[in-house]
Amino acid sequence: HPRVLSRGLATAKAPSSLFAPLDTFGDRHIGPDDREVGYMLSKLGYDSMDAFVSDTVPEKIRSATNAVSNETIPALSESELLRRAKELGQANKSVKSYIGMGYHNAVVPPVILRNITESPAWYTPYTPYQPEIAQGRLESLVNFQTMVMSLTSMDIANASLLDEATAAAEGMVMAFTGTHGKKHTFFVDSGVAPQTVAVLRTRAKGFGIKLVIGDALKDLSDDTLRSDLCGVLVQYPDVNGAVKDFSDLADSVHSAGGLLVCATDLLALTMLKPPGEWGADIVLGNSARFGVPAGYGGPHAAFFAVTEKLKRKMPGRLIGRSRDAQGKPAYRLALQTREQHIRREKATSNICTSQALLANMAAMYAVYHGPLNLQRIAQKVHGLTHTIKSSVESFGYKAINSQFFDTLTLDVSGAAKDAEAVHAAALSAGINLRRIDEKHVGLTLDESVGAEDVVALINAFASAASKSPISLSDLTPPETLAIPDSLRRTSQFLPHPVFNTHHSETEMLRYIYHLQNKDLGLVHSMIPLGSCTMKLNSTSSMIPLTWPEFGSIHPFAPKDQVKGYLELISELESDLCKITGFAACSLQPNSGAAGEYAGLSVIKAYHESRGEGHRNICLIPVSAHGTNPASAVMAGLKVVPVKTHADGNLDLEDLRSKAETHKDNLAAFMITYPSTFGVFEHGVQDACKIIHDNGGQVYLDGANLNAQVGLTNPAICGGDVCHMNLHKTFAIPHGGGGPGVGPICVAEHLAPFLPSHPLIETGGDKAIEAVAAAPFGSASILTISWAYIKMLGGTGLSDASKVALLNANYMAHRLAGHYTLRYKNGKGRVAHELLIDLAEFDKVAGLKVMDFAKRLQDYGFHPPTCSWPISTCMLIEPTESETLEEIDRFCDAMIQIRKEAEDIITGKQPKDNNLLKNAPHPLSVITLSEEEWNRPYSRQTAAYPMPWLLERKFWPTVSRIDDAYGDTHLICDCPSVEETAEH
Amino acid sequence: HPRVLSRGLATAKAPSSLFAPLDTFGDRHIGPDDREVGYMLSKLGYDSMDAFVSDTVPEKIRSATNAVSNETIPALSESELLRRAKELGQANKSVKSYIGMGYHNAVVPPVILRNITESPAWYTPYTPYQPEIAQGRLESLVNFQTMVMSLTSMDIANASLLDEATAAAEGMVMAFTGTHGKKHTFFVDSGVAPQTVAVLRTRAKGFGIKLVIGDALKDLSDDTLRSDLCGVLVQYPDVNGAVKDFSDLADSVHSAGGLLVCATDLLALTMLKPPGEWGADIVLGNSARFGVPAGYGGPHAAFFAVTEKLKRKMPGRLIGRSRDAQGKPAYRLALQTREQHIRREKATSNICTSQALLANMAAMYAVYHGPLNLQRIAQKVHGLTHTIKSSVESFGYKAINSQFFDTLTLDVSGAAKDAEAVHAAALSAGINLRRIDEKHVGLTLDESVGAEDVVALINAFASAASKSPISLSDLTPPETLAIPDSLRRTSQFLPHPVFNTHHSETEMLRYIYHLQNKDLGLVHSMIPLGSCTMKLNSTSSMIPLTWPEFGSIHPFAPKDQVKGYLELISELESDLCKITGFAACSLQPNSGAAGEYAGLSVIKAYHESRGEGHRNICLIPVSAHGTNPASAVMAGLKVVPVKTHADGNLDLEDLRSKAETHKDNLAAFMITYPSTFGVFEHGVQDACKIIHDNGGQVYLDGANLNAQVGLTNPAICGGDVCHMNLHKTFAIPHGGGGPGVGPICVAEHLAPFLPSHPLIETGGDKAIEAVAAAPFGSASILTISWAYIKMLGGTGLSDASKVALLNANYMAHRLAGHYTLRYKNGKGRVAHELLIDLAEFDKVAGLKVMDFAKRLQDYGFHPPTCSWPISTCMLIEPTESETLEEIDRFCDAMIQIRKEAEDIITGKQPKDNNLLKNAPHPLSVITLSEEEWNRPYSRQTAAYPMPWLLERKFWPTVSRIDDAYGDTHLICDCPSVEETAEH
Ligand SMILES: Cc1ncc(COP(=O)(O)O)c(C=O)c1O
Ligand SMILES: Cc1ncc(COP(=O)(O)O)c(C=O)c1O
Ligand SMILES: O=C([O-])O
Repeated sequence: HPRVLSRGLATAKAPSSLFAPLDTFGDRHIGPDDREVGYMLSKLGYDSMDAFVSDTVPEKIRSATNAVSNETIPALSESELLRRAKELGQANKSVKSYIGMGYHNAVVPPVILRNITESPAWYTPYTPYQPEIAQGRLESLVNFQTMVMSLTSMDIANASLLDEATAAAEGMVMAFTGTHGKKHTFFVDSGVAPQTVAVLRTRAKGFGIKLVIGDALKDLSDDTLRSDLCGVLVQYPDVNGAVKDFSDLADSVHSAGGLLVCATDLLALTMLKPPGEWGADIVLGNSARFGVPAGYGGPHAAFFAVTEKLKRKMPGRLIGRSRDAQGKPAYRLALQTREQHIRREKATSNICTSQALLANMAAMYAVYHGPLNLQRIAQKVHGLTHTIKSSVESFGYKAINSQFFDTLTLDVSGAAKDAEAVHAAALSAGINLRRIDEKHVGLTLDESVGAEDVVALINAFASAASKSPISLSDLTPPETLAIPDSLRRTSQFLPHPVFNTHHSETEMLRYIYHLQNKDLGLVHSMIPLGSCTMKLNSTSSMIPLTWPEFGSIHPFAPKDQVKGYLELISELESDLCKITGFAACSLQPNSGAAGEYAGLSVIKAYHESRGEGHRNICLIPVSAHGTNPASAVMAGLKVVPVKTHADGNLDLEDLRSKAETHKDNLAAFMITYPSTFGVFEHGVQDACKIIHDNGGQVYLDGANLNAQVGLTNPAICGGDVCHMNLHKTFAIPHGGGGPGVGPICVAEHLAPFLPSHPLIETGGDKAIEAVAAAPFGSASILTISWAYIKMLGGTGLSDASKVALLNANYMAHRLAGHYTLRYKNGKGRVAHELLIDLAEFDKVAGLKVMDFAKRLQDYGFHPPTCSWPISTCMLIEPTESETLEEIDRFCDAMIQIRKEAEDIITGKQPKDNNLLKNAPHPLSVITLSEEEWNRPYSRQTAAYPMPWLLERKFWPTVSRIDDAYGDTHLICDCPSVEETAEH
Repeated sequence: HPRVLSRGLATAKAPSSLFAPLDTFGDRHIGPDDREVGYMLSKLGYDSMDAFVSDTVPEKIRSATNAVSNETIPALSESELLRRAKELGQANKSVKSYIGMGYHNAVVPPVILRNITESPAWYTPYTPYQPEIAQGRLESLVNFQTMVMSLTSMDIANASLLDEATAAAEGMVMAFTGTHGKKHTFFVDSGVAPQTVAVLRTRAKGFGIKLVIGDALKDLSDDTLRSDLCGVLVQYPDVNGAVKDFSDLADSVHSAGGLLVCATDLLALTMLKPPGEWGADIVLGNSARFGVPAGYGGPHAAFFAVTEKLKRKMPGRLIGRSRDAQGKPAYRLALQTREQHIRREKATSNICTSQALLANMAAMYAVYHGPLNLQRIAQKVHGLTHTIKSSVESFGYKAINSQFFDTLTLDVSGAAKDAEAVHAAALSAGINLRRIDEKHVGLTLDESVGAEDVVALINAFASAASKSPISLSDLTPPETLAIPDSLRRTSQFLPHPVFNTHHSETEMLRYIYHLQNKDLGLVHSMIPLGSCTMKLNSTSSMIPLTWPEFGSIHPFAPKDQVKGYLELISELESDLCKITGFAACSLQPNSGAAGEYAGLSVIKAYHESRGEGHRNICLIPVSAHGTNPASAVMAGLKVVPVKTHADGNLDLEDLRSKAETHKDNLAAFMITYPSTFGVFEHGVQDACKIIHDNGGQVYLDGANLNAQVGLTNPAICGGDVCHMNLHKTFAIPHGGGGPGVGPICVAEHLAPFLPSHPLIETGGDKAIEAVAAAPFGSASILTISWAYIKMLGGTGLSDASKVALLNANYMAHRLAGHYTLRYKNGKGRVAHELLIDLAEFDKVAGLKVMDFAKRLQDYGFHPPTCSWPISTCMLIEPTESETLEEIDRFCDAMIQIRKEAEDIITGKQPKDNNLLKNAPHPLSVITLSEEEWNRPYSRQTAAYPMPWLLERKFWPTVSRIDDAYGDTHLICDCPSVEETAEH
């Protein structure tokens, strides 16, 4: 075994020349070194990687070896990459933005920046599906929910959505489906931000919702409209800054049987009467101004809160408090039964990856500041806005609203030549204002604005009005608020101890560490989650993300200010096209599921453009990920399932017959490749041909792209469009459940339909409307995938895929004989992941998949994907980043658990009180007294079943959590003062 | 109790105006909020902070309230500070340095930068005196020692010294003291770097060593010289780049009875025959090119290695492998009996704080790269240097050495007008070369130099020689090495598994986390180490440190390139002068002890300048820190101890009588204020007057300055000079045992004597020579203290001191009745720390200080300073950064331990098998089987004696460590392949 030898002098590849850089990324990214690769190949009976790949990836889909190579994508060393990133960052102009429209210059508390955003302990874990090893993030996400509930005064809130615009769309769909398809009109107030309206328009289409835009306080009396009204969306304060009283509107909407949906701003709600107190049913918005940089559009955590009666219909992930096997309180993902893999085509939302890391940042911001500081920040922002209003009105400008929080829309006609003159004066002072029209400019203040900024801003207005500049001493604080009494907040917020304790940096730091130490991440051990590709998120690729050059850019900044971003984006788009074999790319979708929806919408638009708008059938294999049918439904398609054979392959005959049956209406076929069963199907091109022959388009779900890069590609496989999960294949960290990026690449004929944006030119010339709030989605994290691709280069990228395949196959080899491998190809090969079936253990000993999973926690491993895509299975994906040693450690653990199961099967251990059923074993169990330790095995066997655990043990912090209890006793906020006192 | 109430709306201070920043630092830095401060004051019987301070700090030494105020030191908010730091950083010119002379452009592996250098888990812990909660750092420091031993081929190495120059001085002193004062000549080869020679000259003075500088290969035959020779220092490769064979020299030095000391370079040793293989007795150098930025001079870890027979005389901290109470291997600080607090005036070194964090960075660099990559880096550096030599020689330049590693000294006379012409051409290409003389320039390559850099460098030489520029394709790699066969390394290095395993970034990250999770730092809980001031090291103050604007500057860069640094340095010096009440400052000393030595040397120089060079008596209270007498001896002074009274105060009569007795030779008096017993003595001014009246100068040890800032100062107290530990009072993190900075401030009359530097102008006009290698010592971390002072501002600084006093007094109040408070002032007040005496427990129950300390670990706390300054005591210092809640938690733990002790005293628990004697209780004990659990208490009582431990527990990773075993079985490297295999 290579590890037993000293690896020392044989590891890294020799540099190509004296002049070549030594800090090459490939050797650091790919876990096994050449010797280990050789060892694994030999164990599988191969003498070369090529021979192995030939047996694994079908020959007919292999791509030309130079398609993705160091010629097409040259490799940069780590330091070259950082220099190049700096160059691009500095090509973005640093202009202070007052554009607003939902995006602010956030002040990230340094303790959060360094210890959450920049900490792999926080950014590498996965979505907390295994709550016993995720109590830290779960607590923080509950803080997020509590913060949202308290500030909005709503009954329940989820743990984030992708952005404000898609959150508004989720609200609209909830309002619509609440009427069971009876009422189709959704009214949108004209004060709602244009990017939200654009996304609503896109999303309304698929559901057949009729959008009406107008003045919600005036235009809702019409009876025909009211009788078809499912809901109304207002923005509070609105995009122009107005703070309006919507309480009568709420009554009116309710009396029409609709829901009032309100987009709002958390900081404003520290001063404004919260929507929950004046009748809103759904409240949503962007939480990013709580310490998350604008980042040229994201990622940001949208929040979403509803009233009690809507809670079980709320989209997105919800964290609840339940109890563990010892009866102790414990957090978990609640109501998981709502997830798409269960509801599939009955789902109304496809949200999966969300924005956990950003939600945690925002929650920590509230924990750090507490209610008092939040209010002070709001008061300052408001006071300065008010001061600016007075000053500029003295120059002859006129604010169109007298009630506002942080945003002014100014009529310039009494002071300056036109709006352009004001913009020009602002720009020459390094300031961006909101462009509205020839007569109006807008401005929004935020926490970053200090006294000097205010003076500079006022003086830009002075200059455009040919007035003399003022200085700070000329300014006097306003004496009143520009918020009427009736709309002022009087209720308390955030009284919970957690928001009133950690206000010194020391305490905050300890709280952050206290939580992170409960969570298993890539910093501890392999996370072999099938379909999730938990690979190394390298530091080099993470470093530029938190540079102000990338963080401080407003998404609607003029293009000539963001040349660095645009160059990076175009390089990334081009590289993704090379990798997928497609012609064009959109980076707008904020997650894989959002990519599916975007891709299917593009397909629909294509059919429509050819007069085939009636095509509405989407064929989807039964083995597909649940987001596929959900996305299809959202795109207005009807799902027709396609069977798979007993060998796991797609049933081509069933596909052909369904394609032919539906050929007049066939819109699309969705296929995951390699399949969700973890094999490269040989028939993929045949399947695609069947679809094309019957007038359909092929959507390739790229979640498994890590198996393909440089070896084959979606275009060769026969697809017309695919999404990629940049947070899987392209190394964006999962952040504990987001952020993600789900760009789509499309073939030439679909390029014209790629999504547009209402404010920044993007997409094709027959573009569908926006699918996300920001023109390039979660732009700031594109730096990560860009860096990953540039550092590996073409050759490194395909090496990574090869080793990912090898690692999975070696693992399959080691587990053979101990577990049942469900599927493999004719040569005995799996793809980049493997599916093992545990059904037999249930039959003979009542042992479920979860029992094995929880026991793996005791071994210090995050369990693989459980019960998906087959309920009795585990789907295991090691990725290329894991070394032979780590893979062996995992296999040893699995084999040892198999032995533990054998003892239960043979009756050596009881069926109801054993190592698997009682797993995981947290310290509170291990330290039970002699009397309480009523188990037929020792503490050591429970805690240290393998010798390496003595040195390297990760402890679950609670016992197995009671899911049913949590769902029936749904509690989704953090403990109150009273509960804490009781405790 | 304030914490029981929701603190929410009453915490932070209100902003002074709408225009004032909200991200003020004071509220975040100081733990207790106003309500908590009020509560603590009331418990002590005060109704105002002023009344409390009056009772605590003697009225006669109180400084004017405006001496340190927001007028004298205005407060910047956190974001203002970061903007100002950026401004200063950008005022440093980015010029690529080839100056060499021991300083290189290091390439910090990003995974180390982010997860060690920038991680509070690594930078906040203290020196690992409590090994059971420090196994992570200890392992890493052993890696450092192993790396040094292996690369130098020496028998043993310590865990770092302050810099190469002081390490050389330690080597010289070892050689000298090895002859028991019989031989006084120390010979220094002319190839030794000038800054090393300067420090040797300073240090030789105090010991009466005669330095001779010359050519070691030629000038050592003289018999008179040989008969007085204690040692020889050579540099390998030397400062001009030459690689010479010193093996005959070694024989010759040994035959004269001296030691051969060798300064060397770790990277070179991957290719060169190591000094241990050709006869060196002591090998030392700077490890910084292993991944630690130049940082304008430091901090860097010097290494120091010796042969077997010298090991027990080696200065500095040494980590050894011992075993714990269960017989398991465990690391600890070995041979602690050598420390100054035990040897005092018999010590020959005063080294205390060293460079642990930097040693850890360097060790991790070796772990990450492994022997193969290290060698490749060396080969590349060498190969490129060779290539440059060939190129520039083709222009007519001539290298003066044909044998070299990475450094060339070039005679320019055959090619360019003069050296200046070459420097000018280089500078205009953004390049710094080494300035030697009119005819020679020097250049040194390092890992950061890539192909484009080489071309630019060569072309600068081409330009100065009026030759046409070359391009990369003109270059060919050299075919041979410029190292003769006889000096090539043939032996293996770093074969240990730890250097051959963690080569992928994922594995490296896991190794870092694996180690850090064993160590208790400020990220977990209070570290109430008396005399150490473990306060918050804020993120804002740490951020600029790792900016390239501060990291990438060579310490010998011309002053016009480092305007930002110089401005920051002058601001810091000026603020420190305001705080101490003194006139001038030197930032050169790299630790508190180095400051002591520098300050005393300044005093000596002052006396000499007045023709009183005979003054050589230094009075030092018996209660003084052990570094005081050690430093005095090193400065050539004779220590005369002064008594203290039973009430802890200095015995003024004893002082007077000794001062008078020695009045003709009285040089200095060293006093710590508040005293090391934790009280403000009323007689401090009287004591100083006695000294001055008798012709002496007063040295004030500023380790306890945190009690003084803005309330009093060393000048008012009567001092003439003081050092500060910036790593205590001014918030530089302790880094697990360094870095530190020990600047000295002096009164007007001493200012002319502040230390100079041979290469960069610094110090006074009658300056002593350098005390450290770099002109401004550990310059890069000055950013931290600068930021700390600027963000708190004058008012915040004195608030911090007030709360530090209050926290300590509240703690004393809570522990009263449970423990014996050893000293307090007439009003019942302690200073910023308190001394409790545990002697009684030993008497009645055999319980030692260590038993209480180790039991505190079970409660999740780092024990206070133990058995110093009184062997039966604990010295407890909470600092201002700890909140009331944390202080109460600590007091609750102490009180509970007192109860546990009571059970032992009353016989409820046996004297030899109880919670204290068996402490700490790691998991390996807690999980013992029923049979092995032979303790008269439960697991829960052992592990969770307080309810909050269930939620928040830090686990020691080993049982109590056997010190005696470790010292008798001294093993100071990490396990070998064989040992690992056995294990
Ligand atoms: C096969 C497949 N498709 C789609 C998705 C959805 O991607 P996302 O979570 O980014 O929305 C996933 C997520 O795991 C997946 O595995
Ligand atoms: C009173 C006193 N003097 C001097 C020193 C030495 O300082 P340093 O460790 O920085 O060398 C210390 C260190 O703890 C100290 O407490
Ligand atoms: O939600 C999933 O990642 O499958």
